[in-house]
Amino acid sequence: MATTAEQDARKKLFFEMPSFEKTAAFSSLKNYALSPLDLTKEGVISPERIAKMKALAAGFTCLYGFEKVSDDVLQALFQLADQRKALIQMQAMQSGEVVNFIEGVESENRPALHTAMRDIFDAPNSGKAATNARLLVKKEHEKLKKFIDEINVQKRFSEMILIGIGGSELGPKALYNALSFYQRKDRQVHFIGNVDPDDVALTLGSVDLKKTLVVVVSKSGTTLETATNEEFLRSEYVKQNLNPNEHFVSITMPGTPMDDLKRYKAAFYVWDYVGGRYSATSMVGALLLSFGVGYDEFIDLLKGAHAMDLVALKTDPKENLPLLSALLGIWNRNFLGYSTEAIIPYAQVLHRFPAHLQQCDMESNGKRIDRRGEPCAFETGPIIWGEPGTNAQHSFYQLIHQGTNIIPLELIGFIEPQSGHDFEWKGTTSQEKLLSNLFAQAMGLAMGQKNANPNKVFPGNRPSLLLLAKKLTPYALGALLSYYENKIAFQGFIWGINSFDQEGVQLGKVLAEKQLGLFKAEHEGQKAEPFPLGETLLQISKQV
Amino acid sequence: MATTAEQDARKKLFFEMPSFEKTAAFSSLKNYALSPLDLTKEGVISPERIAKMKALAAGFTCLYGFEKVSDDVLQALFQLADQRKALIQMQAMQSGEVVNFIEGVESENRPALHTAMRDIFDAPNSGKAATNARLLVKKEHEKLKKFIDEINVQKRFSEMILIGIGGSELGPKALYNALSFYQRKDRQVHFIGNVDPDDVALTLGSVDLKKTLVVVVSKSGTTLETATNEEFLRSEYVKQNLNPNEHFVSITMPGTPMDDLKRYKAAFYVWDYVGGRYSATSMVGALLLSFGVGYDEFIDLLKGAHAMDLVALKTDPKENLPLLSALLGIWNRNFLGYSTEAIIPYAQVLHRFPAHLQQCDMESNGKRIDRRGEPCAFETGPIIWGEPGTNAQHSFYQLIHQGTNIIPLELIGFIEPQSGHDFEWKGTTSQEKLLSNLFAQAMGLAMGQKNANPNKVFPGNRPSLLLLAKKLTPYALGALLSYYENKIAFQGFIWGINSFDQEGVQLGKVLAEKQLGLFKAEHEGQKAEPFPLGETLLQISKQV
Repeated sequence: MATTAEQDARKKLFFEMPSFEKTAAFSSLKNYALSPLDLTKEGVISPERIAKMKALAAGFTCLYGFEKVSDDVLQALFQLADQRKALIQMQAMQSGEVVNFIEGVESENRPALHTAMRDIFDAPNSGKAATNARLLVKKEHEKLKKFIDEINVQKRFSEMILIGIGGSELGPKALYNALSFYQRKDRQVHFIGNVDPDDVALTLGSVDLKKTLVVVVSKSGTTLETATNEEFLRSEYVKQNLNPNEHFVSITMPGTPMDDLKRYKAAFYVWDYVGGRYSATSMVGALLLSFGVGYDEFIDLLKGAHAMDLVALKTDPKENLPLLSALLGIWNRNFLGYSTEAIIPYAQVLHRFPAHLQQCDMESNGKRIDRRGEPCAFETGPIIWGEPGTNAQHSFYQLIHQGTNIIPLELIGFIEPQSGHDFEWKGTTSQEKLLSNLFAQAMGLAMGQKNANPNKVFPGNRPSLLLLAKKLTPYALGALLSYYENKIAFQGFIWGINSFDQEGVQLGKVLAEKQLGLFKAEHEGQKAEPFPLGETLLQISKQV
Repeated sequence: MATTAEQDARKKLFFEMPSFEKTAAFSSLKNYALSPLDLTKEGVISPERIAKMKALAAGFTCLYGFEKVSDDVLQALFQLADQRKALIQMQAMQSGEVVNFIEGVESENRPALHTAMRDIFDAPNSGKAATNARLLVKKEHEKLKKFIDEINVQKRFSEMILIGIGGSELGPKALYNALSFYQRKDRQVHFIGNVDPDDVALTLGSVDLKKTLVVVVSKSGTTLETATNEEFLRSEYVKQNLNPNEHFVSITMPGTPMDDLKRYKAAFYVWDYVGGRYSATSMVGALLLSFGVGYDEFIDLLKGAHAMDLVALKTDPKENLPLLSALLGIWNRNFLGYSTEAIIPYAQVLHRFPAHLQQCDMESNGKRIDRRGEPCAFETGPIIWGEPGTNAQHSFYQLIHQGTNIIPLELIGFIEPQSGHDFEWKGTTSQEKLLSNLFAQAMGLAMGQKNANPNKVFPGNRPSLLLLAKKLTPYALGALLSYYENKIAFQGFIWGINSFDQEGVQLGKVLAEKQLGLFKAEHEGQKAEPFPLGETLLQISKQV
């Protein structure tokens, strides 16, 4: 980690720059937004524009010609990045300086070092904290490799249940599904997240506990849902006369109640500087992907993620895909006023990927105060949602084309199917049909359609960003994940908010505990702490 | 169906009433919205308010005290329903009058009779078109009962693949998952929707085609994705020396290319007056639920849906749950300016239910012109999204509590788990933990929290609607589905838009065909119709 004096100097630098809405670029962009580029105007969406507005990085081709940006707007966005020192902040993050902080008040006050989880190849980041983090990661990889080799030799376990919620479930699940055709056919991974007892019962109905490894993921080692479900599952092991301690593995921070080799067959570490929603490339993703897919494939995924992390450090924003995308998102959000963004992968295996990005983005940037503790005078993170195409076309695209709100889209496509198994009918393959639909939507949304029948009018002028890669390999998936993680971080840096904490989830926990106190008191025939509103809801629930 | 003269009289009645934004109630509501109820104000969220603002219907308890509505606002909303003749329009819909139309231009011009699909019990609707529709449905039920009885006796089929997209997949899949603990353990249903060849390959890897019934669902009989996937699957049958015609069943409109008993083992009917997104209670849901769950359970689901259809005809809006909810949604959308709505089922088995409602709502009400063919002078359907709780609490609730946009929530909860299998730990059961979290969120979002640390401030004043039932039985699920279908229809009636067509999906289809022409021409070494933009995209895709 940098010395305190260096850090203070750096922090000073940050606070000397103008806040987002006080940059010169902000004013220019506000002006441009008064008459933004009209994509429906004759000749605007030209083949030349589409061919020119293209950025390549880490195996991805990004087409941004369908966004409502002129060259002037792009330049102003690049100035915005510059005036908000976006790259310097990204360097600070990747090298392990404290970026998770809010000045002047109690805050988590630590680095955000998820990039170190994959910085284990050549020429690593030289930052002191990043170096320390990397050395710790390498130790975990050695433990993991040994553990997985043993599992592979023993052949005792053919199933895995991962118990975790939020970042401990969404990312790993999205990645596991995304690698469907790389999965080992002799193994299966299940997920239990929800405290809903039906979630546990569903999984119990479909596994043989004797052959199952149970991985419990909780950074703090005390997450309510996870602890409850762990105990639920342990009790099922005991019922079957099995010793849970021979089946259960923990992933937690060093020193938590779950860092206990008496209760767990093995314990793998994550650290406080890796946020749950950024933990997919830490041991949280590593263990299950190494088991269900393969350790080498997981390493390929890390290589892709690392490659995109390096792209995020490039100084030319036209080569820096995460930064470019962050800026286009800010144009749509703060200047054109679009409050949501839909992520549509034209790839069925990515069906849970939007749900992961929904968390990653909304928990990071759904904030209302800036790093100085002042309320933001502008909108922060948008609402992220989405489902795979072409399915989405038969679902909510009606509103996207003809609704009264404009929704910027991010369309993700691949040239080849992951399965390698395609089907030709009526002169084209299914993959070509998939890709043609993706292209068609970008065109139709941008250009619209005139018609004498008002119901057949498409107003157009609706933006989209295209992200294409040859095939969804583990490497491509890693790059795609890192692209979004870094895009989100860049937006936070430019807005000047802290993308790495989640105070907004605390109030609900406190109130749920109070409500549970009423249920508990009732079971035990005792008097609970007075809580009239909770009492009313409890009584109503009894009459339902 | 009513006579043309009667219909014309009815239409006249509709056009004589003021449009949405010209009603007297609209003006009152605009005024109230200048200083809406502040839920954070001391004493507003009182036990008395929560206990009082409660509506019961068809087994559901709806709590609307956490919405930002005063008694005045409620009265004005009820007047709005009255001034827009919401109930008369609902009666017209359920009795089979033409409600799918836009005046003065070419439109589908027909009834929307999904309610007739479950109006097969006592005292049915006396409308002529509704009566005809019901008689046809009863015939299909007889066919279905016979077909399923045979399947049950033969024991030849243990798996089913449903090929369909949009409404032909989302609803059936959501319902099938929602009845997880009612499913037959000796059978499994798979779904193929996406034209992505990986979607087919995923299913092929996990079924024994010999034991599989393939149900192909396409109202028109010509949906690109469905036709492609059907051919893909037929070719796999042929490869295995199996006769697809002995395995394939169609669900389509009478007279389409799929209404062909030479190619299909059986053909079941839907009709043009049942929109895809409203077809879950037609044969589209009937066949797969009867196979995978049971015919009797499906009938229970229909009973629940029918019960809620009758609720939608009640004149007192405080007893008419779908209308009440529609009005609260309009208050949030048009007067408080919230552009999205999140649906959060605190029930893991409902994990695909928000995706179904996303289609049902957004395809119905994502419209920009009214029934006169004029552009709407107000916002129409919101963006609908959501994931199950408590998972969502660990994902995007950060933004919901502390983001810069307000998102009204609809929280769905049950008192008992569907599985009947609960777990007690630390003095409360898992189901109680689930329910306590639901209550806690409604309270926290409404009331917020003050704190000296600005990062721990919760601004509150964020609305939610609670919907509770004892247990998610087939009956409750049917009622829940119908609640949303009727809510959506009511909103369309009040806005004066046509909720039953989907012209907005057409442009993409046309452009995709053009793009496919380029791929095809290239395969065949021929020249395609000139399409420079598509050509550019094709060339870019080759360089990816």
